[in-house]
Amino acid sequence: MSNEENAGSERQLEVAILLFNGLTALDFVGPHMIFASAGMKVHLVSATPEPIVSDNGTVIVPNATFDDCPTRLDILFVPGGFVGETMCDSATLAFLADRGAKASYVTSVCNGSLVLAAAGLLDGYRSATHWATRGHLAQLGVEVSTERVCIDRNRMSGGGVTAGIDFGLTIVAHVFGDDVAKFCQLAAEYDPKPPFDAGIPEKAGPETVATFDKIMGEADVELQRAVSHVLEQRAMVS
Amino acid sequence: MSNEENAGSERQLEVAILLFNGLTALDFVGPHMIFASAGMKVHLVSATPEPIVSDNGTVIVPNATFDDCPTRLDILFVPGGFVGETMCDSATLAFLADRGAKASYVTSVCNGSLVLAAAGLLDGYRSATHWATRGHLAQLGVEVSTERVCIDRNRMSGGGVTAGIDFGLTIVAHVFGDDVAKFCQLAAEYDPKPPFDAGIPEKAGPETVATFDKIMGEADVELQRAVSHVLEQRAMVS
Repeated sequence: MSNEENAGSERQLEVAILLFNGLTALDFVGPHMIFASAGMKVHLVSATPEPIVSDNGTVIVPNATFDDCPTRLDILFVPGGFVGETMCDSATLAFLADRGAKASYVTSVCNGSLVLAAAGLLDGYRSATHWATRGHLAQLGVEVSTERVCIDRNRMSGGGVTAGIDFGLTIVAHVFGDDVAKFCQLAAEYDPKPPFDAGIPEKAGPETVATFDKIMGEADVELQRAVSHVLEQRAMVS
Repeated sequence: MSNEENAGSERQLEVAILLFNGLTALDFVGPHMIFASAGMKVHLVSATPEPIVSDNGTVIVPNATFDDCPTRLDILFVPGGFVGETMCDSATLAFLADRGAKASYVTSVCNGSLVLAAAGLLDGYRSATHWATRGHLAQLGVEVSTERVCIDRNRMSGGGVTAGIDFGLTIVAHVFGDDVAKFCQLAAEYDPKPPFDAGIPEKAGPETVATFDKIMGEADVELQRAVSHVLEQRAMVS
């Protein structure tokens, strides 16, 4: 359950969450609930008003476009997923570069970091990303953090998918203080008890990692193609 | 990230997730990712093809209706949120009673348990629910569990909101075995590190609980009204 009431602030803070085809819904739905529980106003922004389709087929309707999204945001947030196309989309990168330059916090979860990097917003910054995409982030010149939540000045990032919940609570604590973050945690009954201890490669073991690499092989090739495209564009400009 | 490929089964298992206005998106998006990572086919089912609006305003388009949802489901799943209206909707209750009677697993997260109870699917069963709604579930004659994930024969339920991720991994382990569940956990990088220890009332302390009770007061009144309505209907029938 979440609540529209503002639990911690006088002015309602404004957040923009980037929506795009292929995103992982859990990457943004966790932070979204935390933001909303803390009383922030959340804009689900896409290039057009058309619905987007997540990586597993969930159809979500944006409530703002690049044109009508507020200019000055408190938090700009990019989730991950199948981000290759988005990393190479000039309208998306221009939107992010514009809002990112003015936002109080520039943030991501999972390999949403790659989209921020493609927009030039992580030059000279440290960032977390999904464990399987650390190599791609490094190729884009970003200092890769293996932390679950990474803070570098006004850049804040979470690791893969479920790290978004830890990220959301961390940023709410920064903005509103610990008490509001604890309220959000209680509302979401976030007292995790994973039935296994297999959430990172070091704990999951080589066989599970090999299964992941096999299943995600094609997605990885597509991601590498996007990284190479971004690097080529940069070389042409400089 | 998640993947449509089937990581663990020969036949693709079929899951129906109930969508309704006022649901908490995180209640179903966590399990949905786990189901999908394990290769299950997920139907997002609502009364009509019209988009539904979540508790914090996210607009989601169903991909199935009560009429075209498969008759025999492996998993019937109900998320929670502002469930009062749904608990009193006869078409929803008839759909759940029908599919629930034939499903291999009848499941919920958060106060989705109240909707299952209203449909008569928890008579004689034990179930978890969001911590703030345990009293309502007890009023409906259900034996309330305070576990994060509760298994009673073919009924499986999670506690509030984020318990859905633990629930999802648990049911995948039951159906496909531990290795597939570990793969799903690794894909979601589910290695939680909450910045606070405030996810349940006993840990959050009385002040945070009081804030929650105050903010959710109106929602609680509405929920109590729905519970009373369900009990009156039952009394009229018997």
